[in-house]
Amino acid sequence: MKKALYTIGVDFGTLSARAVVADSRNGSILASCQSSYAHGVLSEQLPDGTPLPPQWALQVPGDYPEALTAAVRGAMAQSGLAAEDIAAIGWDFTSCTVLPADEAGTPLCALPGYESRPHAYCKLWKHHAAQGQAARIEALARELDLPFLRRYGGRVSSEWTYPKLLQMLEEDAAAAHKTAVFLEAGDWLLWQLTGRLCRNGCAAGFKQFWSADGETPDEAYLARLHPAFPALCRRTLRGDVLPPWEQAGTLTDDWAHRLGLLPGTPVAAGIVDAHASVIGGGVRRPGQVLLIVGTSSCQLVVNDRPVSVSGICGYAKDSILPDLYGYESGQPCVGDLFDWFVRRCVPERYAAEAREKGCDLHQLLTGKAAALVPGESGLVALDWWNGQRSPFVDDDLSGVMLGLTLRTRPEEQYRALLESCAYGVRLIFDTYRKAGLCPGEVTVCGGIARKNPLLMQIYADVLACPVHVCAADQACALGSAILAAAAAGLHPSLPEAMAAMAAPTQHTYLPDPGHSAVYDQLYSIYESTARHFALQSDALHRLMALRRGGTR
Amino acid sequence: MKKALYTIGVDFGTLSARAVVADSRNGSILASCQSSYAHGVLSEQLPDGTPLPPQWALQVPGDYPEALTAAVRGAMAQSGLAAEDIAAIGWDFTSCTVLPADEAGTPLCALPGYESRPHAYCKLWKHHAAQGQAARIEALARELDLPFLRRYGGRVSSEWTYPKLLQMLEEDAAAAHKTAVFLEAGDWLLWQLTGRLCRNGCAAGFKQFWSADGETPDEAYLARLHPAFPALCRRTLRGDVLPPWEQAGTLTDDWAHRLGLLPGTPVAAGIVDAHASVIGGGVRRPGQVLLIVGTSSCQLVVNDRPVSVSGICGYAKDSILPDLYGYESGQPCVGDLFDWFVRRCVPERYAAEAREKGCDLHQLLTGKAAALVPGESGLVALDWWNGQRSPFVDDDLSGVMLGLTLRTRPEEQYRALLESCAYGVRLIFDTYRKAGLCPGEVTVCGGIARKNPLLMQIYADVLACPVHVCAADQACALGSAILAAAAAGLHPSLPEAMAAMAAPTQHTYLPDPGHSAVYDQLYSIYESTARHFALQSDALHRLMALRRGGTR
Repeated sequence: MKKALYTIGVDFGTLSARAVVADSRNGSILASCQSSYAHGVLSEQLPDGTPLPPQWALQVPGDYPEALTAAVRGAMAQSGLAAEDIAAIGWDFTSCTVLPADEAGTPLCALPGYESRPHAYCKLWKHHAAQGQAARIEALARELDLPFLRRYGGRVSSEWTYPKLLQMLEEDAAAAHKTAVFLEAGDWLLWQLTGRLCRNGCAAGFKQFWSADGETPDEAYLARLHPAFPALCRRTLRGDVLPPWEQAGTLTDDWAHRLGLLPGTPVAAGIVDAHASVIGGGVRRPGQVLLIVGTSSCQLVVNDRPVSVSGICGYAKDSILPDLYGYESGQPCVGDLFDWFVRRCVPERYAAEAREKGCDLHQLLTGKAAALVPGESGLVALDWWNGQRSPFVDDDLSGVMLGLTLRTRPEEQYRALLESCAYGVRLIFDTYRKAGLCPGEVTVCGGIARKNPLLMQIYADVLACPVHVCAADQACALGSAILAAAAAGLHPSLPEAMAAMAAPTQHTYLPDPGHSAVYDQLYSIYESTARHFALQSDALHRLMALRRGGTR
Repeated sequence: MKKALYTIGVDFGTLSARAVVADSRNGSILASCQSSYAHGVLSEQLPDGTPLPPQWALQVPGDYPEALTAAVRGAMAQSGLAAEDIAAIGWDFTSCTVLPADEAGTPLCALPGYESRPHAYCKLWKHHAAQGQAARIEALARELDLPFLRRYGGRVSSEWTYPKLLQMLEEDAAAAHKTAVFLEAGDWLLWQLTGRLCRNGCAAGFKQFWSADGETPDEAYLARLHPAFPALCRRTLRGDVLPPWEQAGTLTDDWAHRLGLLPGTPVAAGIVDAHASVIGGGVRRPGQVLLIVGTSSCQLVVNDRPVSVSGICGYAKDSILPDLYGYESGQPCVGDLFDWFVRRCVPERYAAEAREKGCDLHQLLTGKAAALVPGESGLVALDWWNGQRSPFVDDDLSGVMLGLTLRTRPEEQYRALLESCAYGVRLIFDTYRKAGLCPGEVTVCGGIARKNPLLMQIYADVLACPVHVCAADQACALGSAILAAAAAGLHPSLPEAMAAMAAPTQHTYLPDPGHSAVYDQLYSIYESTARHFALQSDALHRLMALRRGGTR
């Protein structure tokens, strides 16, 4: 039998799964296939019509195996390879996307009688309705000065596991009681594929307060949050924690059959989606930054020492790369923000013009926005349309636009939104710098990186540093394929697998010093306005409270 | 010969002139005709293509006589009356809308060689490019503690005569040198109609620092602003000042012929457009407020004593009503703001839906916005898209929108803009109250008052007081017709003319206590954010400066 030289990487995003087939010798992608989740994101109502309150975002777990099967079979068919050519399969998944399951692994929402209960569904990373719980978890940990909080920059995001689990306990105790395991959707899928219940160390470390060598939340603390919380955590948060490049198990016969692969094919332990792009983008030296830009954005900074950075998750060794520390910061909407604008704020005559020119509205607006010079519009936006993650970790913040006039044109607002996302990154970099880390040498991955040169130039100008665009269309999926290659032992170590397989730079954007000088001024307006609304004024918090109260 | 019992009132607005023919016995409107200015507002370029910088807004004076003639002839034809039935003609005009003319009354822009010089044109009230001059005029008057400044609440608007004249002197000294008279467009038109150069006391008092009994700017002060300024003011700001209800003169033969009226028909001295609606709306008791809502908005409060109110123009007796004091405050964009939104921010599918329903976008958005409850959108806007007049008097402020999220819909933003205009009025009322005046009993005039019940209800809810909508479609033009009746002696006094002719209330909106309670909270967010950006943060000023510098 010839040696299997190819691996499959599957990237589970917010709306779809994408599988790639990669050559383990050079990282070239032979085939790629995407499949959407049948139910997409549930933010207004459940499939049966049960309405959802604001800030909820759910998914139907049954969509994931369907999308996985379609994507892997599609990619395999396209590749022309046979099942025996595949050495291993790896995966990455949005996080913290978590669901409750029973002892058999059946998601609660798939059990009879649970289809109308919102808490029985999978809570997507961008479910922001557990802000109250997050605030209490954080406040009590701060009051008790618990050491685990320092690894997370002193803040707890409502996106993480504990707030989401506590929200279920408080709002639907019966569902919590029925829950045997509360786990990452990616870990749930691995359980299905291999029969092994375990946790990937990346999500466990970054989103679940887990640490191999540090403190974790103790039971006395959990009991002060809710008397039933310690038992619930003990019962439902479990499974061995494995580093992402380790082999977690092998495909069951049943799943091998469904995917068209061989039974016994190794499966890697998996990783958080954004973090997979660090692997795929070849970022592995201290100080390097991987900026992934999609519907939302993450900045991943690799470093060789642990530092507590306010509002930023720093986590211990081995969560992304062996022996290094990964730091994660994020912006909860980037592409989503541009899409919101295009769908809801662009007038008819622009749509007509786009049709005439045979382009889409993003392209039309990008073209018009590129003709503006920095500062010309007099606009600055705070990019908080979906809350604020780093450095303020506050989902009750919302978007702000300053400088509107009767002359303000759609392309000016569009450009202001692009710029606001770059200011958001600069604010995060400033936060790292104040903590003594020096982020530099930015590599950008994600669909928008290659589709929107204007945004890339704005990043370079606002950050005043070179911005490399990663050549891989699918850096996350490639990263998962590299993890699979490491897990299967095709390379002696993960760094060696990366050296062989990671994507090269396609294009480097250099900052324009004149633009950077104007952006220094605009950024200082962004920065002072951000601090005002995040730290001094309660205006946005009061608006969010009124919004919740006012919704019928 | 039978007694002439009818008068004509002509209202010169921002885009058109409207003439009404009114019955002096009961104020009923027999006919009404509107005619647009051929060149509209010049904000991007002059008629010959010469580009204009930001914040400029000009008009072509020759458009006014053309529109006057068409409107008067149209209304007369429609009325079925003969020339001898018309006892007098009255007028009101936007203000401070000022132009330079030579000794013969020819506007500078109509002289050969001046067609490409922006300063030779008529500066519309909303020309905001003299902010620098206004700031210096104010600062020096404050430094010298000049008493005239107190009548204007301690602030000088860039919209007024002195800043606009000083801007001409500083930016086009040759045009200033050529100017023999610098006057209100309404006064200029009166000069054309009657051959008499005089000034209406309303504009002179509110916009030109004139006072019969108080201090006016002295020459030593003017010389410190610019050495040539005292002589320029002395030479170009002239003409007797008359109260609005006085007869200024009679129609020349030539103009009587053009208008189809009798030579010798009396012409009233005229009034600022917004102030005419006080007359037409029948507001004549201390404490009553006339709110005129059009492209912009004015609040006119009538009172029996002089008080200095910060950021609000209080002026002496006889500028609107005999023996009473009129106070003027304003918002530089209201209808313009809603139009901006409809033209530039509403997506194609809404336009399609409006067509399907056979309504316009304002109606569609109003319908959708009316279905929202206060607070539901979580949005608050600062209504400063065209600068801020009262109480901050700062044209370098710009619009702000707070609370945007990925769920924000167009009708939510539209409603937030309506609400922001009502918050702006409440901020002004609060300012009056702090000065010891008690505005109450609001009467609303203007096209939007009758077209947009939602906006009227929002005013009632936000201000927590009854809002009466004036039954006259054209309260300003009716006010001018009432002034004409007083000027011609058809009634013994202006109050008696008003008692006979002013418009009744068509509908009264009562506040909903539940809505008012929510609006109390939203208003406090508006108020604190307004104070932040007007008084504490320099963000909006810096953005405006960058916008000016960044424009090519």
